[in-house]
Amino acid sequence: MCLMSDQAVFRRKSMSMLEAETRQELHKYCRSWRRNGQRIALVPTMGNLHAGHLALVKAARGLADRVISSIYVNPTQFGKGEDIERYPRTLEADRLALAQAGCDLLFVPDIETIYPFGLENAVMIGAAPDLSSTLEGQFRPGHFDGVVTVVARLFNLVSPDVAVFGEKDYQQLLIIQRMVDDLAYRIRIHAVPTVREHSGLALSSRNSYLDKSQLETAQYLQAVLRDTATRAGEAGVELSVLEAQAAIQLREHQLAVEYVSIRRAQDLATPNDNDQDLRILAAVRCGKTRLIDNLKINRACNSGG
Amino acid sequence: MCLMSDQAVFRRKSMSMLEAETRQELHKYCRSWRRNGQRIALVPTMGNLHAGHLALVKAARGLADRVISSIYVNPTQFGKGEDIERYPRTLEADRLALAQAGCDLLFVPDIETIYPFGLENAVMIGAAPDLSSTLEGQFRPGHFDGVVTVVARLFNLVSPDVAVFGEKDYQQLLIIQRMVDDLAYRIRIHAVPTVREHSGLALSSRNSYLDKSQLETAQYLQAVLRDTATRAGEAGVELSVLEAQAAIQLREHQLAVEYVSIRRAQDLATPNDNDQDLRILAAVRCGKTRLIDNLKINRACNSGG
Repeated sequence: MCLMSDQAVFRRKSMSMLEAETRQELHKYCRSWRRNGQRIALVPTMGNLHAGHLALVKAARGLADRVISSIYVNPTQFGKGEDIERYPRTLEADRLALAQAGCDLLFVPDIETIYPFGLENAVMIGAAPDLSSTLEGQFRPGHFDGVVTVVARLFNLVSPDVAVFGEKDYQQLLIIQRMVDDLAYRIRIHAVPTVREHSGLALSSRNSYLDKSQLETAQYLQAVLRDTATRAGEAGVELSVLEAQAAIQLREHQLAVEYVSIRRAQDLATPNDNDQDLRILAAVRCGKTRLIDNLKINRACNSGG
Repeated sequence: MCLMSDQAVFRRKSMSMLEAETRQELHKYCRSWRRNGQRIALVPTMGNLHAGHLALVKAARGLADRVISSIYVNPTQFGKGEDIERYPRTLEADRLALAQAGCDLLFVPDIETIYPFGLENAVMIGAAPDLSSTLEGQFRPGHFDGVVTVVARLFNLVSPDVAVFGEKDYQQLLIIQRMVDDLAYRIRIHAVPTVREHSGLALSSRNSYLDKSQLETAQYLQAVLRDTATRAGEAGVELSVLEAQAAIQLREHQLAVEYVSIRRAQDLATPNDNDQDLRILAAVRCGKTRLIDNLKINRACNSGG
């Protein structure tokens, strides 16, 4: 453990998971691993980890020799009036869960480490306009710019071989993949299916805001999407009709609909009759809590068209 | 030369300089060099190379084992009404000059290689607001966003150990250094002093637009800056007075002043009395041609405050 001995700044936490707070500490570990020919997977998170995050870490274990997870509640992806202060922070529990899931290194930077010149003078990256202006982008302006801005910093800090993201944030996944492709990052993006409660509710840190009655209501988000996705898979159906019906059903379950939309899976464009890989995506409010979910649609070939 | 034999896309040009047009070709060379432990220096250019560019290549030779130069006239850094169509393109001469200067690989991408999703949907990077909103930024809105956007792509494509830029574009140099520091790129930025004609005129591709009479006029840009820089180095002088006098002198020489300004060298802030590292920067029009220049000022300590 020669790495351990040479500076007090390197700390070893529970279950032999390393921890870094600064760019220098992080680089020291990464450099050492890379020199030994080890491949690195990165799992960026905002903490308050649940089984969905841990599925990312477990997937990462199978993709690389070393897994780095970051916990950073990124201010640039929260809009005005959004819940950054309220966002749940559970570092001690997260640390234990990551170590148990096989994470090798936890990176927990402070704001000066990620934004050393301050938020006002930060170099910001603009998410691809076509992918980011729709759906979430209409309700959370600037959100995806903040996401790609912090992800690019993490990519540059770690230089991972692969980075792992969840399909729960499907639009984010496409936007990060696009950033990689457009900016020419040499990083593979690996997507992990959404982890769900027994009820079908997609795991989310924001579920912790829901009371028991809201948790029961919230499950209808996925139930309606699942039902709609099944019907959308049939040949010859009118997608806009299904979208409208889904919105009505969600409202009947006291879920305030921001959007429910069936899009082409690869680029979120409005599907034409020949597109078979579709995705249904929705955002609702359950009480004050905003929930998103999405499901794959395999559409049968339309006859005619 | 096993690299050469395995794909027709790899071409060897004059003076054994390699050439790549695609991301794949570029990566193949870079990967091979990196595996052999060779350090890579990058010299991004827009072509129409002069001795200033070649000084960058020569500096790069001393900093790394391999030198990659790119020639790409980047549309996102040209504003409306700017001279992208008119920008001089001299690829054959550039190729020869680079090979003679010791460049190992010339990267000449087309627009789809740099912006594979088109210009409208490009992931753009915003230059640091504090550095980019002033001086050039006031006269060329969006210019530096285009610069950092293309430079980041080149950085990701090449992953150089060091990248070399000229002090001629001093504000650009600071903005690229800031991008590196803020976005956490592991790339050293090396600055090379401006190369000048015997007359003192800073070399620039745009000098080719000047006729003989304008070339005589243009030299006064550096002459006035040099005189002003010398006077600004003296203790107790009022910088704003010097700036105003410099603007008058430039106009007397038929140079239309956009700005002439003395700034703190490190961050382009307005200097206070204790700042010693200053820079004088100016932009003028000589006929229709826009010229910029800048000089270092070493200011004596001011007595008092």
